Amino acid sequence: MDLYKIKDPSFLKALSIEQLKDLSSDVRKFLIENLSSTGGHLGANLGVVELTLALHHVYESPKDRFLFDVGHQSYIHKILTGRAEKFDTLRKYEGLCGFPKRNESEHDVWETGHSSTSLSAAMGMAIARDLKGESHSILPIIGDGALTGGMALEALNHIGDEKKNVTVILNDNEMSIAKNVGALNTALGRMRSAGKYNRAKDDLEWLLKRIPAVGGKLAQAAERLKDSMKYFVVPGMFFEELGFTYYGPVDGHDYHDLLENLQYAKKTEGPVIIHVITQKGKGYHPAETDLKDKWHGVGPYKIESGEKIKAAGAPPAWSEVISDTLIKEARTDKRIVAVTPAMVLGSKLEKFQAEFPDRLFDVGIAEQHATTLSAGLATQGMKPFLAIYSTFLQRGYDQVIHDVARQNLNVIFGIDRAGLVGADGETHQGVFDIAFLRSVPNIVLMMPKDENEGQNMVHTAVKYNDGPIGIRYPRGNGSGVEMDDNPTALPIGSWEVLKEGSDAVLLTFGTTIPMALAARERLLKDGISVRVINARFIKPMDEPMLHDIMGEELPIVTIEEAVLLGGFGSSVLEFKEEHNYKSWIKRLGVPDRFIEHGSVSKLWEEIGLTEDNIINEVKTMKLTKKRRA
Amino acid sequence: MDLYKIKDPSFLKALSIEQLKDLSSDVRKFLIENLSSTGGHLGANLGVVELTLALHHVYESPKDRFLFDVGHQSYIHKILTGRAEKFDTLRKYEGLCGFPKRNESEHDVWETGHSSTSLSAAMGMAIARDLKGESHSILPIIGDGALTGGMALEALNHIGDEKKNVTVILNDNEMSIAKNVGALNTALGRMRSAGKYNRAKDDLEWLLKRIPAVGGKLAQAAERLKDSMKYFVVPGMFFEELGFTYYGPVDGHDYHDLLENLQYAKKTEGPVIIHVITQKGKGYHPAETDLKDKWHGVGPYKIESGEKIKAAGAPPAWSEVISDTLIKEARTDKRIVAVTPAMVLGSKLEKFQAEFPDRLFDVGIAEQHATTLSAGLATQGMKPFLAIYSTFLQRGYDQVIHDVARQNLNVIFGIDRAGLVGADGETHQGVFDIAFLRSVPNIVLMMPKDENEGQNMVHTAVKYNDGPIGIRYPRGNGSGVEMDDNPTALPIGSWEVLKEGSDAVLLTFGTTIPMALAARERLLKDGISVRVINARFIKPMDEPMLHDIMGEELPIVTIEEAVLLGGFGSSVLEFKEEHNYKSWIKRLGVPDRFIEHGSVSKLWEEIGLTEDNIINEVKTMKLTKKRRA
Repeated sequence: MDLYKIKDPSFLKALSIEQLKDLSSDVRKFLIENLSSTGGHLGANLGVVELTLALHHVYESPKDRFLFDVGHQSYIHKILTGRAEKFDTLRKYEGLCGFPKRNESEHDVWETGHSSTSLSAAMGMAIARDLKGESHSILPIIGDGALTGGMALEALNHIGDEKKNVTVILNDNEMSIAKNVGALNTALGRMRSAGKYNRAKDDLEWLLKRIPAVGGKLAQAAERLKDSMKYFVVPGMFFEELGFTYYGPVDGHDYHDLLENLQYAKKTEGPVIIHVITQKGKGYHPAETDLKDKWHGVGPYKIESGEKIKAAGAPPAWSEVISDTLIKEARTDKRIVAVTPAMVLGSKLEKFQAEFPDRLFDVGIAEQHATTLSAGLATQGMKPFLAIYSTFLQRGYDQVIHDVARQNLNVIFGIDRAGLVGADGETHQGVFDIAFLRSVPNIVLMMPKDENEGQNMVHTAVKYNDGPIGIRYPRGNGSGVEMDDNPTALPIGSWEVLKEGSDAVLLTFGTTIPMALAARERLLKDGISVRVINARFIKPMDEPMLHDIMGEELPIVTIEEAVLLGGFGSSVLEFKEEHNYKSWIKRLGVPDRFIEHGSVSKLWEEIGLTEDNIINEVKTMKLTKKRRA
Repeated sequence: MDLYKIKDPSFLKALSIEQLKDLSSDVRKFLIENLSSTGGHLGANLGVVELTLALHHVYESPKDRFLFDVGHQSYIHKILTGRAEKFDTLRKYEGLCGFPKRNESEHDVWETGHSSTSLSAAMGMAIARDLKGESHSILPIIGDGALTGGMALEALNHIGDEKKNVTVILNDNEMSIAKNVGALNTALGRMRSAGKYNRAKDDLEWLLKRIPAVGGKLAQAAERLKDSMKYFVVPGMFFEELGFTYYGPVDGHDYHDLLENLQYAKKTEGPVIIHVITQKGKGYHPAETDLKDKWHGVGPYKIESGEKIKAAGAPPAWSEVISDTLIKEARTDKRIVAVTPAMVLGSKLEKFQAEFPDRLFDVGIAEQHATTLSAGLATQGMKPFLAIYSTFLQRGYDQVIHDVARQNLNVIFGIDRAGLVGADGETHQGVFDIAFLRSVPNIVLMMPKDENEGQNMVHTAVKYNDGPIGIRYPRGNGSGVEMDDNPTALPIGSWEVLKEGSDAVLLTFGTTIPMALAARERLLKDGISVRVINARFIKPMDEPMLHDIMGEELPIVTIEEAVLLGGFGSSVLEFKEEHNYKSWIKRLGVPDRFIEHGSVSKLWEEIGLTEDNIINEVKTMKLTKKRRA
């Protein structure tokens, strides 16, 4: 059928299973074709085609609430709710968001991006529904990977206790982004291979009837066993133990099985979990057969062959520069251990894992545990490298403060995807970490100007033994600079003058250095000579250099791809206040609002992080006779 | 025996059970006597006397690692490791810390304060041990309340998966601080009342042998059941499912039972959980019979009667002022729901719970879930009031950013224990929240000057429907001001001039206002007239008033009981920079280091948050001819 004509999902009610199957094929074709040019989360969406159609067939959105955990698997839901025509703008500036978005549709009732939030939100919605005397279904759709996030487990504990009507759809594809890990995953594996729940209960009833009725000690044992019968729940007893009624395992690509179980769940009182087994990448051979991550998130590709369309000869990815250096360091420094919350692939740690299988710990989606695990390692003289995206470090914040920094432990934070990340949008922008880390005592925080400085910073962090130290690096690729054979340790708190100048000073680091250098060139043509400084240590700052700059009373522009409130620029203001300087300072950075998806260059323009603005600030300060400040 | 003579716990090895019992009595007597004058966490420690002695009897600290989760139950461990003589300084300035502290003793290997961290740390220590080829036991001692914290569950998932030798001591007193909640607690309840694990397994073996060997369909059912036998684990199957060997339930006050199970666990390979049932307050009648929290944390008391020694006629506690107002608001505004992570007592929500049992949700120790649950409620038009300590809000930080603020939901944060908290020390100081919240878009943040303004702020928050809003209030009691009959809504972002003055301006809020007013009085005597402003909105600030002040070019001192880096004072610096003012600004607040325990007034002196320093700053700025700014 013509997917572009779909206005809302109500038409699904009337479809037969055969028609649903036909529609599934159309949806898969649509996804494979569209994403071949835009890129996106193909694998996960191919896995939930039947599940999403079945949900919209049985339930009634938006009256019934669908909450897509993480939300990258909501593309089919978007198609069914009238957004097919926007798929050519997927994840582009002012285009369709790659995650659920309340201002896109009334069918998106809960926004996601980070994992493991849907159960808590569903419980909040269930409480509200019951207080208001309403009756509708609430359906969080959560993957087996997201389920191991601590907050999802906290929510299970609460939902099971309060006995609210919440229908959890456990979308089990045995993956987080890549292969899932953890004891709970093993337990899920047993459930996957076990028979159906109801049959097991029947078997037990039948057998217990056949236990011979005898007296004395034997009767006691039989009685005790009968009392324990409620524990005998196969295969979903982990969930039953927490107060849920378990249905499953359900074949997530079989409409008969799906519809039967959804209908059954709809009539069940109290919390329910439907364990649906799906296959990531289903229906597209290159994705199905991909051994790494079943095409989790992809760029453009050729449909026939599955060949990825990539810019030729791109410099190495930042994650790779950092992890390659870490491997070199780990060869000589036995203290080094790598820790990652389900991001072996994202953080490019496959090579580390291959070379040091005993020294790489993928803890699953569990940022809190990953952080404090690293702290525990450090108490024993190890040197843990915690590879974690900036935006996900938010979830280990208390652990950074309370466990790592307060005990001043030698944990290295590899803060990946720092700065604006582009297509993933506002849930993933790595713009808060400077503000939230800088206010914590004992932490050293750096950002490299290029890959070679990146390897120097990894080396610096390994050699530093006075507490926690973080290296933040951006998403994407380096600039292709030549790499030294052997890295050098940088003096803690040292900045570097990249270009001399006597009329003003630009203080910046990392991704915004090229912008500052370009602005300097243009200013030179107007006869203004600007000093550009690589402020590679965000904390501590280079105080001797700052004293020199402020002593000269030169105008200063700080430039950072991070929030302005409480950020690096503010620390320069604080230094000035502390030492009673009167330099005129202007700050450029991310304003006080959430920044949506789009290419990073587009976003820079939107927020005024541009060469032009640097030039304007410098000229204004230079030319204003009556300086104020 | 004379507890003061104990140097280390090695003597315990030689003690008989009778001698251990005698020692237990001595320890209880010591605790009850000492804490009657110092106060402290009596109930929890009385519950673990036998358990702690048994651990030190069977294991060898510090070679074997004891990790006390939360750590308020480590007093007996402190006594046994040579610190009895310091108990008269417990929780006092420069005295014995109320939590494990690595610089106090080599027997304190992991510092705590916040809950649920011990399992992650233990796993880190286990990995380090195995990589280094060492062999010792690692024993996290965690309560049933702390176990439901998401990070503890994340850690269980990892430990169970990796099969490391970690011996988890589950200290189950059916309480967090007060009565424990959650589905897992219900499951623990079933375990408590069930028989011993081994006996249940024996029963099953016995019964299965008696299943008649028959053919056909019946044989298949029996076969399936035998395959499922591994699931039949009573009562610890929740833990067995996650890969742990379960021992218990063990009577935590019976040395025979304790020692037998600890010895058994010591010989078991892989992760073990020993489920120990203890009684909070054991051995002291007033604590045992207390229905609220079994004397969780107490001030001084009379030993015989258990009567608490309190200053007579103290003004109401801040938590009570806030929750009393919330009750009034909830009577007319049906949208209001209260959410608390295990702090019904701490946040004084008992009366709310009594009046609105359906509108109070105690989610257990689960700050992440509590935050996103509130977000979920807000999406449905409810008005959740999340009562949470400042220091524990750190644990819901990603949820504040990603779920509440990004979706701009109407969640009210009741940020309790904001500022320095005194005796609980560095793990509990509520000094980071301004810095970490202020950098997040969409949040309004306030702090009241007194109880009446406190009730006005609760009212303001209830009436505000444009996104998240936080009220921070300190530990302890108000000042006893008269309360208006009906609260007034404050204009968002409005400050208040408390005292006029034309030579300088003090910008402050909350607890530091009296200090500012006192400094003003003393400055008046020197002929200096200082304006004192109640900067009750930390974000957004009163911009018109700031324009006036900075337009006058008056010297400004900002005063806050919170971290200076990125704090309120920095936001004033940012305003000045943004608008090109040249006011001279000095900031007073908490410096860039962790602040240990002690009375708040002592701590203020230590960090220079004093009248004298305010006066010095004002005089310096006023008298310096060549202002540098």
